[in-house]
Amino acid sequence: MSSKPSTLKGTRDFGPVEVEKRNYIIETIRQAYLRFGYRPIETPAMEKLETLTGKYGDEGDQLLFKVLNNGDFLSKVKPDLLDQRDSHAVLPQIAKRGLRYDLTVPFARYVAMHQHELAFPWKRYQIQSVWRGDRPQRGRYQEFVQCDADVVGTTSLLCEAEFLQIYDQVFTALGLQVVIHINHRQILAGIAEHFGFGDQFREISVAIDKWDKIGRDKVMDELSSKGLTGDRLPDMLDLYESGNIDSLRDLQPTGTLAEGLAQIDEILSYVDTDAMKQTVRLDIRLARGLSYYTGCIFEVSSAQVDIGSISGGGRYDELTSVFGLKGTSGVGISFGLARIYDVMTELDLFPAKAVKSLDALFLCMDADSLAHGWRMVTGLRASGARVDIYPELAKFKKLMKHADQRGVRRIVIIGEDERQSQLYTLRDMNTGEQQKLSIDDLRSLLVADS
Amino acid sequence: MSSKPSTLKGTRDFGPVEVEKRNYIIETIRQAYLRFGYRPIETPAMEKLETLTGKYGDEGDQLLFKVLNNGDFLSKVKPDLLDQRDSHAVLPQIAKRGLRYDLTVPFARYVAMHQHELAFPWKRYQIQSVWRGDRPQRGRYQEFVQCDADVVGTTSLLCEAEFLQIYDQVFTALGLQVVIHINHRQILAGIAEHFGFGDQFREISVAIDKWDKIGRDKVMDELSSKGLTGDRLPDMLDLYESGNIDSLRDLQPTGTLAEGLAQIDEILSYVDTDAMKQTVRLDIRLARGLSYYTGCIFEVSSAQVDIGSISGGGRYDELTSVFGLKGTSGVGISFGLARIYDVMTELDLFPAKAVKSLDALFLCMDADSLAHGWRMVTGLRASGARVDIYPELAKFKKLMKHADQRGVRRIVIIGEDERQSQLYTLRDMNTGEQQKLSIDDLRSLLVADS
Repeated sequence: MSSKPSTLKGTRDFGPVEVEKRNYIIETIRQAYLRFGYRPIETPAMEKLETLTGKYGDEGDQLLFKVLNNGDFLSKVKPDLLDQRDSHAVLPQIAKRGLRYDLTVPFARYVAMHQHELAFPWKRYQIQSVWRGDRPQRGRYQEFVQCDADVVGTTSLLCEAEFLQIYDQVFTALGLQVVIHINHRQILAGIAEHFGFGDQFREISVAIDKWDKIGRDKVMDELSSKGLTGDRLPDMLDLYESGNIDSLRDLQPTGTLAEGLAQIDEILSYVDTDAMKQTVRLDIRLARGLSYYTGCIFEVSSAQVDIGSISGGGRYDELTSVFGLKGTSGVGISFGLARIYDVMTELDLFPAKAVKSLDALFLCMDADSLAHGWRMVTGLRASGARVDIYPELAKFKKLMKHADQRGVRRIVIIGEDERQSQLYTLRDMNTGEQQKLSIDDLRSLLVADS
Repeated sequence: MSSKPSTLKGTRDFGPVEVEKRNYIIETIRQAYLRFGYRPIETPAMEKLETLTGKYGDEGDQLLFKVLNNGDFLSKVKPDLLDQRDSHAVLPQIAKRGLRYDLTVPFARYVAMHQHELAFPWKRYQIQSVWRGDRPQRGRYQEFVQCDADVVGTTSLLCEAEFLQIYDQVFTALGLQVVIHINHRQILAGIAEHFGFGDQFREISVAIDKWDKIGRDKVMDELSSKGLTGDRLPDMLDLYESGNIDSLRDLQPTGTLAEGLAQIDEILSYVDTDAMKQTVRLDIRLARGLSYYTGCIFEVSSAQVDIGSISGGGRYDELTSVFGLKGTSGVGISFGLARIYDVMTELDLFPAKAVKSLDALFLCMDADSLAHGWRMVTGLRASGARVDIYPELAKFKKLMKHADQRGVRRIVIIGEDERQSQLYTLRDMNTGEQQKLSIDDLRSLLVADS
């Protein structure tokens, strides 16, 4: 290797403070999932390519990372395919593994595969990395962590209500102000039907989902180009523009639309939105791209930082059927760790305790002091304190520079005086304040702190 | 997908109880690392192939998982290479990414890349998955978790002593009895030199490392076949057979051997092995295959279950030099999660608290009771209890079967009586014992338990 070492574009290292802050978010989410009866599973990073392919649309298939078969991978490829340089046809002959693209498909595969061991309704959470070959750009990575929870095997709308409560508890615990947008695929379908566009429901959903990014006029253009015409198109867009629940009720809905609205009403009847710290808003322009949603859909945005969606989810009726398990309705949500991290960083919301820094670093002035300090550190660690010792003899200036670079809160200085008196100098690195403490006082202070 | 869904050979799913037990081990290791001043980093699963290639020997290069470039990957391959079906030469043209094979090389890459941000001696721990294309077999997987800690930038033998203490604390906390074998590469080199085989040190290490598996005679055969001859070979093997520190001192060592022994003596002088719960043993037959070790080496085996090494490590002087950072000595250890899990399972050592089961599951007899139970569950969760509710109406038998399948410790039954009296039936599912509790008593019981 001649060049400087580096990571792949779209991937990144996390240093100690980043890992600990990320773990603080993860732990907050995890504790909420546990309180609501969700239990963890983990699935392999590599799945059979056939498990992943065809689940995310053509674009998703392109973005899947495929893992090359080991050994002489070309030996089994049909010669004419190589001659034609047909990457698409060669692929399945040289790669049988892919990296998971999300946690939903592996979860569906898990449920279908282990269905006879599971007690339905079955609740699981899963916090793992996923990989996508998107073009790397600011805030978009090829490897990122998702924090999912799903419940399958029941159509009870109490599940949707639980997710509203989980959102409320998690974001409140993190100190964030968010808006939880909810909508229902049957509301979207019902609106399309009402205006005579029932057959173009899918195109409408895709276009409406982009409303807040591209605006009404471009949505109109997109729908016109897809063949939606007539006076009823602007009427429908008026409704979407108002985004208003009353306008929706004014339509005196029947059928699909009425069903969607009734479900939203039922869900909201289960939660005391007034007592919630976060805002829940019926947002009829919320569509979510993923085609597998069939019921209620969720999306959460920060009320403080304009960064797009920080969580999303919804109900799906047939997710596991592609793996042979039919009639198993489910609903789930996913927190995007990276964006929540970015919002919390921008708002400076991480508490000091999120970062597990040392309780104290011991700096020793001579060989006898180093031996003395080592015994103290050994005892303190055995008592549970997080302490460290500079393990070599060095000039005081170098020791202090090390303590400073390392960002430790406190140092304990040991020289001949301290050894003789058995009173040790503790310095607070932020305030510069110093005090002399016995080993017992030092232990009480540091262990209480850990 | 017509066939039944499945995972790839060599990979596996982890269900809730497995994940929680694994996390219990991880958390025990993590807390020890933190107490000793180690801080976490995380590196990407995918590294540049050039970062990984050539670091693990030819066999390792074979076992690296390579990730296919996205898009039309064949378009840039030189035609003659395809014609010759030269997998080896085609590889770098179609794959620039690899999955990490261990945590040591990514760590060395990290240190070299971020050297100007780090305060040396620098301590990091890292707990992540690694991937190897080994042939899958019982107890050997293609994806597994390693739990590493390393310190770089100091030659102080206090670091080696710390690892002995970490081993002692971690395995004691897990309830295991282990033997911590230590040796030193200079002892191995010194023995070879002493018997006139200094140039064959590497071959001797490789053969001796297998002693406990294949026995003295086969080690002798292997060394003879490598060109080691003469009377001094059996003499050397006698020494290895005795495995005895006194026989070693009887050689009246000088030079390399004396240095190695002196380092071991110094390390042991820093720890009070009598006070340790685990056994430390100088084991001159311990060699460890990895060629980058230059100083003290460690290996831990269970004293209770014959399963091979459950942790290993050692000092290396030039690990980061391949990435351009020279003269940075380091020492590290790695815990193998899967084997520790297997030993603990065999010995039934997981405490009940390792598994985060529900505090209680609510079962409701009718629609009004379900609404009532839902409000109770909502309040209990907000208070921190881990509770769940069966979210539909169902026959009592079905509800009980669900509670049973789910393995919950306690159920709360709510019917008309309970609603009226506001005294709720709590049943212990293990003992069958029932009691009637008010909501306040229920809350005290369940929240205290969480």
